[in-house]
Amino acid sequence: MENAVSSEDAIVMTRARTSCHRIVPVILAGGSGTRLWPMSREQFPKQLIGVVGSDSLLQATVARMEGFTGAFEVDAQPLIVCGEEHRFATEEQVRLCGVGARIIVEPARRDTAPALTLAALAIAADADADADAIMVAMPSDHSIADLQALHAAIDIAAGYAQRGMIVTLGVPPTRPDTGFGYIRIGEPLDDGAHRIERFVEKPAAELAAQYVAAQRYWWNSGIFIVRASVWLDALRHLNGDMHAACTAAFEEGKVDGHLIRPCPNRFARVPSDSIDYTVMEHIGAAGSPCEGAVVPLCAGWSDLGSWDAVWEAMEKDTLGNVASGRVVFEGATSSYARSEGGRLVACVGTANIVVIDTDDAVLVADRSHAQDIKRLVARIREEHAPEAEMHRKVRRPWGYYDSIEHGARYQVKRIVVKPGGQLSLQMHHHRAEHWVVVRGTAYVTRGDEKFLLSENQSTFIPLGVRHRLENPGKVELEIIEVQSGAYLGEDDIVRLDDCYGRA
Amino acid sequence: MENAVSSEDAIVMTRARTSCHRIVPVILAGGSGTRLWPMSREQFPKQLIGVVGSDSLLQATVARMEGFTGAFEVDAQPLIVCGEEHRFATEEQVRLCGVGARIIVEPARRDTAPALTLAALAIAADADADADAIMVAMPSDHSIADLQALHAAIDIAAGYAQRGMIVTLGVPPTRPDTGFGYIRIGEPLDDGAHRIERFVEKPAAELAAQYVAAQRYWWNSGIFIVRASVWLDALRHLNGDMHAACTAAFEEGKVDGHLIRPCPNRFARVPSDSIDYTVMEHIGAAGSPCEGAVVPLCAGWSDLGSWDAVWEAMEKDTLGNVASGRVVFEGATSSYARSEGGRLVACVGTANIVVIDTDDAVLVADRSHAQDIKRLVARIREEHAPEAEMHRKVRRPWGYYDSIEHGARYQVKRIVVKPGGQLSLQMHHHRAEHWVVVRGTAYVTRGDEKFLLSENQSTFIPLGVRHRLENPGKVELEIIEVQSGAYLGEDDIVRLDDCYGRA
Repeated sequence: MENAVSSEDAIVMTRARTSCHRIVPVILAGGSGTRLWPMSREQFPKQLIGVVGSDSLLQATVARMEGFTGAFEVDAQPLIVCGEEHRFATEEQVRLCGVGARIIVEPARRDTAPALTLAALAIAADADADADAIMVAMPSDHSIADLQALHAAIDIAAGYAQRGMIVTLGVPPTRPDTGFGYIRIGEPLDDGAHRIERFVEKPAAELAAQYVAAQRYWWNSGIFIVRASVWLDALRHLNGDMHAACTAAFEEGKVDGHLIRPCPNRFARVPSDSIDYTVMEHIGAAGSPCEGAVVPLCAGWSDLGSWDAVWEAMEKDTLGNVASGRVVFEGATSSYARSEGGRLVACVGTANIVVIDTDDAVLVADRSHAQDIKRLVARIREEHAPEAEMHRKVRRPWGYYDSIEHGARYQVKRIVVKPGGQLSLQMHHHRAEHWVVVRGTAYVTRGDEKFLLSENQSTFIPLGVRHRLENPGKVELEIIEVQSGAYLGEDDIVRLDDCYGRA
Repeated sequence: MENAVSSEDAIVMTRARTSCHRIVPVILAGGSGTRLWPMSREQFPKQLIGVVGSDSLLQATVARMEGFTGAFEVDAQPLIVCGEEHRFATEEQVRLCGVGARIIVEPARRDTAPALTLAALAIAADADADADAIMVAMPSDHSIADLQALHAAIDIAAGYAQRGMIVTLGVPPTRPDTGFGYIRIGEPLDDGAHRIERFVEKPAAELAAQYVAAQRYWWNSGIFIVRASVWLDALRHLNGDMHAACTAAFEEGKVDGHLIRPCPNRFARVPSDSIDYTVMEHIGAAGSPCEGAVVPLCAGWSDLGSWDAVWEAMEKDTLGNVASGRVVFEGATSSYARSEGGRLVACVGTANIVVIDTDDAVLVADRSHAQDIKRLVARIREEHAPEAEMHRKVRRPWGYYDSIEHGARYQVKRIVVKPGGQLSLQMHHHRAEHWVVVRGTAYVTRGDEKFLLSENQSTFIPLGVRHRLENPGKVELEIIEVQSGAYLGEDDIVRLDDCYGRA
């Protein structure tokens, strides 16, 4: 029904048939890029870090529809799609936003089209609400400065989506960027919107310049507005395999409170592809099952796709410098320095330089070479350096630990346990552990003993003794752990019991 | 007698009268510069760090006369002049060289002329050796690549010094550097040497270019070769006050094993000035009490006066890059990156950039602005940031400590105690301490108890209890200390007894 729209009349007809006024924000948080290394890593990707403000990009995205005053009702519960490996961090960050999101946990990486399809299936399965809501699908790792302008564009886009179109927000380009896909705009519609003539891939420099000069190409923002049923119909038409595999994975999956878990075996068979390639690039072609509209977005959008793009998106001082944390500039211009973890970063006479200082790695890059970081990270990974994949601070369901020092036969960790958090009941073959509580209260299991430790108390866990650390309190528990032994690898752990299902 | 030389005949006459064949290396180690910040700091200056190799510059200087095969006998015991605040580190580094140096400890900073004068007085007071030895005075913080060439130049220079001249090594310039003083060469002597026509101060750029073009100006290397008696006579003639004050300070000072300690009250009255200004700039002038010669030094000399100069002095890869420690270059050129303390330093697309990463501060500088680091450090000092003055790792007579982590009410230190070292018997009003031994053996005093702790054992020092940590063993003792309390400043310490005289 919705995929039969092919003329102005048909749109009017569709509008008459539907009344859907519900918007469900869908946040695509499956990214795992390392283009913002060393802040983003495989295990802690860009959406989970506070690139622009103190909130993470994911948190900023969760809050993005707040205060929407358009003609549609926005669901207070966004749908978030993320990978299994980032589930705990995603959950924790969303919890801190005070938002009761539903989270679809993908058992494997399959790019954006299956992610959006799972979201559409979840909406279609909603029994107690309009099951054909309008999805506002947003990448979780972009920044948008002007939310009012965004809301206005979404309000217009949702109108076209309500009538059965697949709508995207396009950014009129300000420079011939080769890092984005472009949308060639077609026939004008109302409110500044256009029909989509076609999607075009990332161009080479010369072509990008022509696109900008022609004034008929907008950047693809990656934000899509489409009814759940329209998306599913289009996908069935264009990639029946993906539609069938996603549907099977969804239907044989489990719902676990706010978590939606597609069936891993079924999901493994889903082909991997992007929204653009699977659907959007077919719009406007002969036999296309649907029509597309593009609404202009002039709201300070950035995909933060490189440190150069981050510098572009930040507020600068009169010399073009941006400082974050303990930074001193002396004669520097157009530079971006960021100190995570408290070290002093000093830039002397630098021009167009990015400095990112983290606990275990520091990046110094010429802004014009920011794209080469992908190659750099690949090289670091080849050399098996852990800095490619993980941070010194490692997140766990119960909190995190930070390896602050190590020697030949010892290692010192700072361990922070959330209120109510508990580590697994465990045992080590090769190391003993000393624990000193420096904040909060610990409930310790050591062999057959169980006891409380408060600030400034300590205990010793001999090698081979089973033990557990719990935070029974209302504030965070922080301990300093000194490990001692001939082998101190993370894999010397026998998990006897774990409340997060890791035993 | 020695200052009467004024013609070729007189030189021959003097040569006939003296037989001094003894060379005493004199190492001027009183520097406190921060031009190589963040590696050099007020409390740990350039000569104490390994700028070029793994040995410190001081250690390289101590070893510099090894293997000398010229016509003179080189004393195995160099004389080192350093400041009180660097005494322990200087002693420790020299001890590690396996050299039994004598160390003159200056109670205050008075520049190089008083330092050389104290050395001359110490030599003149030597009862059991030729008391008019030839001093080879060397700054402790320069690098010289070709020691054979240095030795050859010193051998020639010592010949002229033996005959009563004040001799300096001059470096034929390879660029119009404005950072050095220049020596205008006069009448040629044998073996490539020249009479000194005059010393000239650091020139502006234009003048420096003229000097280089004229081919009659050499860089002042800061290395002087002169007999102790010749120096003392020249000084008495040119600055009687300095001579008298130094003599009084030396005579009323103390000799304490290998340490020579001038009288602090007397030394406070010594005027502060450099060798160049006090004596060398008068050479060649009417009424000068002595004659000067300059011997060319073509031995890869560098004063390492800036990070740019360090880069110049280092061996580079084909792209002009220099890496030290865990460094990855990706598309970088003519860059210098140095990782102290184990972090990964990655440079992407940088050109002419210096990156120095230390435990608590990272410097990123354009090489052409390396001179501005002085201004940077002044700014950091104004803001009372400790990174201007001290390293995270703090040296003490008994070893060192490294503050590896701190929170609101706790601090974690790694403490390393040398074999035989002992901390003071002390007490804290505001903090308790947990000690975990991770290497070696500790002898602990806690209140009235005394006991040994070995690897993987721990103890707790409650607030207000007097305690002492000692290393009774033959290997280093390493402990992890967790301090806990409302106030954790270094000044919360009551020293009850100290074997290094600090109580």
